[in-house]
Amino acid sequence: MIKSKDLLGIKELTSEEIYHILDTASGFRDVLKRDIKKVPPLRGKTVVSLFFEPSTRTKTSFALAAKRLSADFVNFSVSTSSVVKGESIRDTALTIQALGADFVVIRHGSSGVPHFLSSILDMSVINAGDGANEHPTQALLDLFTIQSHKKSFKGLNVAIVGDIAHSRVAKSNIYALKKLGAEVRLICPPTLTPAGIEKLGVEVFHSMDEGVKKTDVIMTLRLQLERQSKGFLPSLKEYYKLYGLTTERLKLAKHNAMVMHPGPMNRGVEIGSAVADGPQSVILEQVTNGLAVRMAVLYLLAGVKK
Amino acid sequence: MIKSKDLLGIKELTSEEIYHILDTASGFRDVLKRDIKKVPPLRGKTVVSLFFEPSTRTKTSFALAAKRLSADFVNFSVSTSSVVKGESIRDTALTIQALGADFVVIRHGSSGVPHFLSSILDMSVINAGDGANEHPTQALLDLFTIQSHKKSFKGLNVAIVGDIAHSRVAKSNIYALKKLGAEVRLICPPTLTPAGIEKLGVEVFHSMDEGVKKTDVIMTLRLQLERQSKGFLPSLKEYYKLYGLTTERLKLAKHNAMVMHPGPMNRGVEIGSAVADGPQSVILEQVTNGLAVRMAVLYLLAGVKK
Amino acid sequence: MIKSKDLLGIKELTSEEIYHILDTASGFRDVLKRDIKKVPPLRGKTVVSLFFEPSTRTKTSFALAAKRLSADFVNFSVSTSSVVKGESIRDTALTIQALGADFVVIRHGSSGVPHFLSSILDMSVINAGDGANEHPTQALLDLFTIQSHKKSFKGLNVAIVGDIAHSRVAKSNIYALKKLGAEVRLICPPTLTPAGIEKLGVEVFHSMDEGVKKTDVIMTLRLQLERQSKGFLPSLKEYYKLYGLTTERLKLAKHNAMVMHPGPMNRGVEIGSAVADGPQSVILEQVTNGLAVRMAVLYLLAGVKK
Repeated sequence: MIKSKDLLGIKELTSEEIYHILDTASGFRDVLKRDIKKVPPLRGKTVVSLFFEPSTRTKTSFALAAKRLSADFVNFSVSTSSVVKGESIRDTALTIQALGADFVVIRHGSSGVPHFLSSILDMSVINAGDGANEHPTQALLDLFTIQSHKKSFKGLNVAIVGDIAHSRVAKSNIYALKKLGAEVRLICPPTLTPAGIEKLGVEVFHSMDEGVKKTDVIMTLRLQLERQSKGFLPSLKEYYKLYGLTTERLKLAKHNAMVMHPGPMNRGVEIGSAVADGPQSVILEQVTNGLAVRMAVLYLLAGVKK
Repeated sequence: MIKSKDLLGIKELTSEEIYHILDTASGFRDVLKRDIKKVPPLRGKTVVSLFFEPSTRTKTSFALAAKRLSADFVNFSVSTSSVVKGESIRDTALTIQALGADFVVIRHGSSGVPHFLSSILDMSVINAGDGANEHPTQALLDLFTIQSHKKSFKGLNVAIVGDIAHSRVAKSNIYALKKLGAEVRLICPPTLTPAGIEKLGVEVFHSMDEGVKKTDVIMTLRLQLERQSKGFLPSLKEYYKLYGLTTERLKLAKHNAMVMHPGPMNRGVEIGSAVADGPQSVILEQVTNGLAVRMAVLYLLAGVKK
Repeated sequence: MIKSKDLLGIKELTSEEIYHILDTASGFRDVLKRDIKKVPPLRGKTVVSLFFEPSTRTKTSFALAAKRLSADFVNFSVSTSSVVKGESIRDTALTIQALGADFVVIRHGSSGVPHFLSSILDMSVINAGDGANEHPTQALLDLFTIQSHKKSFKGLNVAIVGDIAHSRVAKSNIYALKKLGAEVRLICPPTLTPAGIEKLGVEVFHSMDEGVKKTDVIMTLRLQLERQSKGFLPSLKEYYKLYGLTTERLKLAKHNAMVMHPGPMNRGVEIGSAVADGPQSVILEQVTNGLAVRMAVLYLLAGVKK
């Protein structure tokens, strides 16, 4: 059973809650294979997205998850909204609640905004990414994808590669994988390593060849290309040479290692095309599973509120 | 019974029609309290929004009102549309009608655009704000909110505070309140007082302390911050000092005076936070009531067309 | 019966397939005349639009067509999406498919993009305009509109007027009309005549007065106003004088000649207002028929996939 009406981060979930979400997602993945991919549990409920950072991919995934549960979905467009007119995020959120929304799905550039909203709202708050803090539904869909290929998380060797310092995807996955008993390695340039990250129980590698050795799962992260201009990186070519997941490097991992990426990919920067499109890649599966996981989250949080 | 297929302004409504809309909204407010907030009367109907000025708040309210009546809602995006390509508003509106829309909800910077469209269209036209003329659904939701707190409009003392000269919200509320027998006072800087406004049967105050005395309702208006640069105002700080609704000033009104604001608020400009969030504020109730009123308008206009 | 799961262009259709789409559209036009304009065949299906060029009109038409068939419709907004973040169109399309979409409706500035997507996707691809190549649903709705006014396409004399060189609407209509046995004349300035167009079996006129003589149908094309700055045209006034469809010129055509325009119109550039709004104009009928034709296309392609 899920205890909170909100999904703020993986940090706030117990391993039992995580497994419960994954089990529920499993049922919804079967629904998505049907000819008519629609079920009625959230009929008459309203999901509103409030995205302060652009993201069509995540927003569309939530929109479709809502619609397949028969909920209404409305995007509260920030660029044309009262937010631009100087309204505080507190007032915007209270307005969305007063409009009768049951869920607000929020993405914001600052860490902790979903937690703040959670404290003032009765409706369910779902964190769709807050600053460099967390992106919990991404980690849940990653877990769900791993689970459908591997027997257990216990002792599984997972490498996360890239700009760990700025990555909420990395952060949520570290919390999640550790809670379920996996071993987590981070592979990243020294300039993009968060200080004190070892305290989370992870091992840090600056050499990709060393880091990927004998791993079961390799999660490549999207490189924000603007980091380069900020002096964190030499050049994209150099980055690919040092940290790109190539066919050669993939051979250093276990023979059945899974290749993951949250998308959108920079081919030839963090991942080679032969790997991205190769037999070990589960990248498109992640997208499909994202839908099932988001349906599960909406469904379970609706249950908490009853 | 409503006579016109369109809602162009409060000016065009009789007091009987206004009461009929409020009574209908009352029924819909009960629907909004249900677990499943959806009813079938507009199934198969289409509502199209055509907003030439940005407004997420009003547009979202109409979108949700339409969806809760089981209608389809589509936003005709002006920024990417044929309007930008030089099409006349007449041709755009006729196109929307030819696409089979049953309602067009229009917001435009020029007064009278909804009236012009009404004269050429068979579908229902709903004015969601035209220039400095009217914003009828805002006035209707304000009336509905007042009605749920006060016994009668007769003799009720209502103060409207702010930039009256540029406010369609003020204009629609003046028409509405006068039709239902309330006393209306306008409190505004001399530079923002429309010439000849007394003809509408209202009293004008330039002193806030004088104006709020013994009022039953205080409606604060949003200050368009760009007015300042145009020389209408000294400074925002000065404006707040002279016309901001503070806790002290609120004490000059009746002890149970209602505090209203159409949103989005500029806290510390037209209203203090202690007042906005205080026990006399009905600002979030207004948002919720807006949904019920817009459902009532869509429902009643659909009935006219039959 | 339609053979392909995709609608890429008129070029790829047989005349039997074209007639089958028109017959199916005919049934849906009756649905659109009903009080409740909704039918259930695509319940649980998802239509995603992916527009790399702005177009509210075509996108709204597809959105309403999808909704009236009870499908879910989601716009994959290009401006805020991963496309801007550097993702390839191949990866974007594969992501949309992985999200469970059944149809992608694509508009792109480059010819052949829908064909490329068709080769990599299992979901149905509908071309909503690709470069200067084709805009098949526009041609289908034009045919449907002609068919409802004329006995047969055989021997029908159709003039297409304007910027043929850059027009995908012209291209699709030429293919379509020739397949159904009509005579096609192109009327265009020498600078806007595509080289070798006569090979398609059309007659080219540079004089409007000559070209419209005894025609049964006159299709005026939208003039992209930016062509002028590129030196293709002298001035808009001059263009109207030479190629504008005026009341006088319309008299040179058959007495019952139909006047068509794909919209949005530049009144006073390619067409005079008296003609656009006159009794021979079927321009708004085209808009309504576009909905019926797009419902037919969605419905028939869904059938192919089963």
